[in-house]
Amino acid sequence: MQRVGISIDSRLLAGFDELITRQGYSNRSEAFRDIIRQKLSDEELQNPQSTAVAAVIIVYDHHQADLAKKLTGIQHSNVVNTISSMHVHLDLHNCLEVILLRGKVGNIQKLADNIVSLRGVRLGRVNLVASEQAE
Amino acid sequence: MQRVGISIDSRLLAGFDELITRQGYSNRSEAFRDIIRQKLSDEELQNPQSTAVAAVIIVYDHHQADLAKKLTGIQHSNVVNTISSMHVHLDLHNCLEVILLRGKVGNIQKLADNIVSLRGVRLGRVNLVASEQAE
Amino acid sequence: MQRVGISIDSRLLAGFDELITRQGYSNRSEAFRDIIRQKLSDEELQNPQSTAVAAVIIVYDHHQADLAKKLTGIQHSNVVNTISSMHVHLDLHNCLEVILLRGKVGNIQKLADNIVSLRGVRLGRVNLVASEQAE
Amino acid sequence: MQRVGISIDSRLLAGFDELITRQGYSNRSEAFRDIIRQKLSDEELQNPQSTAVAAVIIVYDHHQADLAKKLTGIQHSNVVNTISSMHVHLDLHNCLEVILLRGKVGNIQKLADNIVSLRGVRLGRVNLVASEQAE
Repeated sequence: MQRVGISIDSRLLAGFDELITRQGYSNRSEAFRDIIRQKLSDEELQNPQSTAVAAVIIVYDHHQADLAKKLTGIQHSNVVNTISSMHVHLDLHNCLEVILLRGKVGNIQKLADNIVSLRGVRLGRVNLVASEQAE
Repeated sequence: MQRVGISIDSRLLAGFDELITRQGYSNRSEAFRDIIRQKLSDEELQNPQSTAVAAVIIVYDHHQADLAKKLTGIQHSNVVNTISSMHVHLDLHNCLEVILLRGKVGNIQKLADNIVSLRGVRLGRVNLVASEQAE
Repeated sequence: MQRVGISIDSRLLAGFDELITRQGYSNRSEAFRDIIRQKLSDEELQNPQSTAVAAVIIVYDHHQADLAKKLTGIQHSNVVNTISSMHVHLDLHNCLEVILLRGKVGNIQKLADNIVSLRGVRLGRVNLVASEQAE
Repeated sequence: MQRVGISIDSRLLAGFDELITRQGYSNRSEAFRDIIRQKLSDEELQNPQSTAVAAVIIVYDHHQADLAKKLTGIQHSNVVNTISSMHVHLDLHNCLEVILLRGKVGNIQKLADNIVSLRGVRLGRVNLVASEQAE
């Protein structure tokens, strides 16, 4: 840990302090570090060769024939990239599943596309986290 | 199910067909429906009063004193909004946790901010899925 | 201007310094201030009642009958919100126009939707800048 | 122009029709085509080698010594990429400038970073439009 000094005008600093207090930070340095990590992570994820962890979040209709089997199949055939998954019953028809993947950004994106494009998957979102910045 | 006709120029359609084939779709209607659901979901999430499910993804240092306890505490004190969580050991120092929340968009955002701002949480991302569009 | 101290671990600081040097910053405080202004601006733009300036960027086919007239009409009938526009000839068929708007975020969004949805407008993007943070 | 048929359930179609009516579309096909163009454009902009047009929007303090000169200098030294710019006086202190750039996505991004990182530039946003999809 080292200490660096930042010059900033009082009005801008007041706005920042209000924002981070609303977000729950009790410490300005902690908020700064989080912002920097987020910036570096965002930049790293631009590169398809970076290593990342991703959460693929899908909502699907569990009545769709074979979908659960296909989902399991895709995950097993990409066993290098699949870490684990979590399943929630949303309502009578719909399941939500979070599938955690690890690998190169480019490969993860392709695998996520294959999951989201399955018939019966109604909504899909992919959320990448650069693994390097975690360290 | 009903059938609607869309007028589109051949070049644009060819570009679309290539894109969805790369993504893994075998069926143009399926791709259209997914795009529409995504649009409607994005719009609904603009409204803080909409009901949503969210995945909060955090990377944190498990050596940080009390963090695991605080994470559990926040989730239990917001038991209405917390569905479940999944935990992965990334490396010697870091854990990744996916916390599933359900509730009004505005409340979920606040709860997510409280989680991400905890000392020791290095990276945090929130991914909202509008629950209405799932139905 | 005041000076605040930030605690940060050396590795994270080195990553940040590399990033901002690549972006062209010669001064760490300047980069910090820009990041903070961006954060505050992003947050303010969540509120439909905030005042903002927006650039609506459209690509359109200048052969489309009446489109130029409709574009001018929309801008004049919303003269309170329209500042000015800039026009570029992209190629034989296409024009790019940047339309600057000022007003409440909610009103600007509606006006931008009306522009982008015009027949003949091929692509449209809206870029909001919170005007408060400019001051 | 050709006509393609899409199968869609009534409830989803009703939601889509409401959305595009609110946005100002009078024609479902037009809305579909715009959505597809946007998708293809978004995908193309992922590639640093794609050709694009970009609007760089900056807010800056016109009292900042030499900034206007530096802005002009950067634009002239990148004359291949700079198309034109538009200037608006926001208030006593601040100017808003929209700078239109054309070139490879990667080069444009670097040039935009150099502009936004100039001392005195308070806020900066870059908005890319893939030029291929315009054709």
